[in-house]
Amino acid sequence: MSPTRKEQIHTIIFGTSTPAGALFDKCLLVLIIASVAVVMLDSIELLHERYDFTLNVLEWVFTLVFTAELALRLYCHPRPIRGYLFTFYGMVDVLAILPGYLGLFFGDLQYLLMLRVLRLMRVFRVLKLVQFSTEARTLMRALIASRNKILVFMLSVMTLVFCFGALMYVIEGPENGFTSIPKSVYWAIVTLTTVGYGDIAPQTPLGQAIAGLVMLTGYSIIAVPTGIFGAEMARAVRHERQLKHSCPRCKKDQHEEDASFCNRCGSALFVDKTTSN
Amino acid sequence: MSPTRKEQIHTIIFGTSTPAGALFDKCLLVLIIASVAVVMLDSIELLHERYDFTLNVLEWVFTLVFTAELALRLYCHPRPIRGYLFTFYGMVDVLAILPGYLGLFFGDLQYLLMLRVLRLMRVFRVLKLVQFSTEARTLMRALIASRNKILVFMLSVMTLVFCFGALMYVIEGPENGFTSIPKSVYWAIVTLTTVGYGDIAPQTPLGQAIAGLVMLTGYSIIAVPTGIFGAEMARAVRHERQLKHSCPRCKKDQHEEDASFCNRCGSALFVDKTTSN
Amino acid sequence: MSPTRKEQIHTIIFGTSTPAGALFDKCLLVLIIASVAVVMLDSIELLHERYDFTLNVLEWVFTLVFTAELALRLYCHPRPIRGYLFTFYGMVDVLAILPGYLGLFFGDLQYLLMLRVLRLMRVFRVLKLVQFSTEARTLMRALIASRNKILVFMLSVMTLVFCFGALMYVIEGPENGFTSIPKSVYWAIVTLTTVGYGDIAPQTPLGQAIAGLVMLTGYSIIAVPTGIFGAEMARAVRHERQLKHSCPRCKKDQHEEDASFCNRCGSALFVDKTTSN
Amino acid sequence: MSPTRKEQIHTIIFGTSTPAGALFDKCLLVLIIASVAVVMLDSIELLHERYDFTLNVLEWVFTLVFTAELALRLYCHPRPIRGYLFTFYGMVDVLAILPGYLGLFFGDLQYLLMLRVLRLMRVFRVLKLVQFSTEARTLMRALIASRNKILVFMLSVMTLVFCFGALMYVIEGPENGFTSIPKSVYWAIVTLTTVGYGDIAPQTPLGQAIAGLVMLTGYSIIAVPTGIFGAEMARAVRHERQLKHSCPRCKKDQHEEDASFCNRCGSALFVDKTTSN
Repeated sequence: MSPTRKEQIHTIIFGTSTPAGALFDKCLLVLIIASVAVVMLDSIELLHERYDFTLNVLEWVFTLVFTAELALRLYCHPRPIRGYLFTFYGMVDVLAILPGYLGLFFGDLQYLLMLRVLRLMRVFRVLKLVQFSTEARTLMRALIASRNKILVFMLSVMTLVFCFGALMYVIEGPENGFTSIPKSVYWAIVTLTTVGYGDIAPQTPLGQAIAGLVMLTGYSIIAVPTGIFGAEMARAVRHERQLKHSCPRCKKDQHEEDASFCNRCGSALFVDKTTSN
Repeated sequence: MSPTRKEQIHTIIFGTSTPAGALFDKCLLVLIIASVAVVMLDSIELLHERYDFTLNVLEWVFTLVFTAELALRLYCHPRPIRGYLFTFYGMVDVLAILPGYLGLFFGDLQYLLMLRVLRLMRVFRVLKLVQFSTEARTLMRALIASRNKILVFMLSVMTLVFCFGALMYVIEGPENGFTSIPKSVYWAIVTLTTVGYGDIAPQTPLGQAIAGLVMLTGYSIIAVPTGIFGAEMARAVRHERQLKHSCPRCKKDQHEEDASFCNRCGSALFVDKTTSN
Repeated sequence: MSPTRKEQIHTIIFGTSTPAGALFDKCLLVLIIASVAVVMLDSIELLHERYDFTLNVLEWVFTLVFTAELALRLYCHPRPIRGYLFTFYGMVDVLAILPGYLGLFFGDLQYLLMLRVLRLMRVFRVLKLVQFSTEARTLMRALIASRNKILVFMLSVMTLVFCFGALMYVIEGPENGFTSIPKSVYWAIVTLTTVGYGDIAPQTPLGQAIAGLVMLTGYSIIAVPTGIFGAEMARAVRHERQLKHSCPRCKKDQHEEDASFCNRCGSALFVDKTTSN
Repeated sequence: MSPTRKEQIHTIIFGTSTPAGALFDKCLLVLIIASVAVVMLDSIELLHERYDFTLNVLEWVFTLVFTAELALRLYCHPRPIRGYLFTFYGMVDVLAILPGYLGLFFGDLQYLLMLRVLRLMRVFRVLKLVQFSTEARTLMRALIASRNKILVFMLSVMTLVFCFGALMYVIEGPENGFTSIPKSVYWAIVTLTTVGYGDIAPQTPLGQAIAGLVMLTGYSIIAVPTGIFGAEMARAVRHERQLKHSCPRCKKDQHEEDASFCNRCGSALFVDKTTSN
């Protein structure tokens, strides 16, 4: 049975496998990037005053196009409210058009900063275009597998910056820039993460020695999250590249790269060396 | 035999597996974070003067709650002095309540910095709540396995910063900010660890060339502790995920988590699902 | 049949395996580095005025030598136009001599910056000398294998810096240095990549707290491209070191570099020492 | 035959396995660190003037002790001139005592900086104490195995900083701090390595955009040397932990962790699972 017009539109808008669907996604990507660029240019005072009319017109064009697109999505989706509007990406789409309409009511300058930032959230729509790729899935798999160890690491780092910050607060004191414990902890984060603004820097020799210790610590423990994530990434990449053949008896899909027997049911696998990588 | 009241309290306070024990730990975590926040806010001069009474009251509430908690711990622990008070975490608990009482005797401003820092040491109690998790153990295993190589690395880094610092001391000299060898070594640490405050920076062309070499060196040798720790982390993660049984026929030790048959010889494995992770 | 003079020159200029070819490459490398050094020294105003004549003469010597070399290459190459001139390295060779001749017509100071930069592009010729080594091939293999995941990562980083930049634009505002969204995004990149110039830094407590979050994020997610590339590099290095022969009896593919017997089944391997690395 | 006095001294000074040898090494380490500390303190003008006499006496004590030690080494070494004096560590020992004696003839202040730096080279003697440990050997093995790829990487980084530096030189120009190509290349190194002093920073919007690209590039390509070294480190650590059993027939020492047959002669190995790790 040939697809209805609703189903056809659904394939174009939500699907990426057909040429029409791929083209739609590319156009959408260009529009999103263009609208984000317009928001950024509009925030530069010089350009805001000189090109006020043009930027406004462009902004309305984007708002209307995105409204039409959202309407189409709701029209052709089987469960528009529960299945789309209340998901993360559905809310992002609503946020993408909201500032345009809010600007009619709240056009004062004081709301301008907020509206600009809301418009900028359209950039999240770019992520939607990549979320189903195999690579993104492997990345997510590795990130999720490492989250507990990363949490333990972050907890230890927070403890470290509190200790170092408090230590420098006592050693350097308010007259050298370390005016309170929160500010000293801020300095400790700036130094441990090797950012090093230089807005606050130790002046006393003992403070500089402790600071050197903080720097060497921060420099060395970058190895920890890297090792954690690297180990999980290696597993995820091996998993991604496993044999594509399923076991003839129990249909199990995943086997080690050099397996000769299915480890679920014990029957022999026919390894096609040309497909393994 | 039903547990005595002492044993019941012990399960709640020291154990984390029962609902009551988990709830107790969560409340404790909230209290510790709140007390650390109070100490940090109190160190900001503006807030210290405006909310002096409130912060003092809160500080006493925390001190009394932690005193009661420490008393309960000593009460229900089988060997309170040797088995708890003289351990690291026991000392941290004592340090957590000590500043409150010391403040009665040493209330002068000159001791205030020290007392604030002592109060901040409560943050170590947070680490106790995670020290027994599998992830923390794997992290510790990898850290301990890499400690010797990391030591060799740190020794080489110290030698490098001394050489570079001394070199810049001669090249730039005191008139360009490099006033002594310790200060030049401080600059070398700031630059090698890529922190880069900018408080001391080379002015002469030759100095800038050497500085470029220092930066490229520091940028490249981050790879060393990362490689060391990464290799040990990969082993620790593999170890964490292995089945504890070897194949009865071919003695192969490593199998996938959900394997039922050895994939080298095809014979059946006896999988103990409770021990595999 | 003994090689013609054309083929002899081709072997020297394009080949690296004969002693004459290797010597030619070394001389060329020295000349390229010398010419790049001359361009750099010429850009320092002091030296440009004092040694104007010497630097000009040197520049013409290099231009004439490189012109002669390019002529020789086109002379002895079987398909000079399609097979060499229109490749990347052919264009680089043309760019290497072009500024010298353009300088005759466009000798004005306003073009001087551009001509200096064009001359600097000779540095790309250095890369040609290493492009065929096994190590460079392994590196390229790993880079190409990781490009998709790196792309997903870069996309996420761009989204992050937009969000953080927009957030700080609202929190800190133009009076604290965050004068527009592009400038705030620039600050976010400077901070997330842990560069930390310090030309723009947060002044408000909330801004410093968010900045701390940005720094810790940037510090942690260095792990992601490192894990991605590390996993692919490990595979590429393993691939680089494998024997090309599989065991005749049990078909095992991976053996140590110097193995003579398969360590799974004990049968003899035919090791071709010339192909193993 | 009982060892002569010469051989006894040799065991103490050059060997580390006997208790006397280990004690000697520890004392030597303390002396070296103390002498380096004295040199550093002496370079601080304030301390140099106040404690001039004490520091001079200490310096002479160290010089005399190190002279006696060097004399003992030459006395008990079988081939003192060729086998020790002309090796790297022999030269370091001579350099350690030379400044003291040179200071008698060249006591002027202008030589002081140089003499201080020469004295600081004693710090290399610390490295001698660790050079034979297994961990240091594994580290060196991995470093040597990765040197070619690291070289290709460094070559690419140099090309990158030249391109970026030249580009910013043209875009920002001398009026914004980028006064010459060498200075712009210095800025590119400072930014690519994420050090970020802030002494030179881009002012124009296009310059800041290019700078953002430089920062993201530097931030991402840290992955390359880390991946290179990490892969080699993993191999070196695996090699370090291999089975300790040699093949009963051909005495080959190294086998893969899960090998059942010696891959040089084919005979069966008896794997002692308790010793494999």
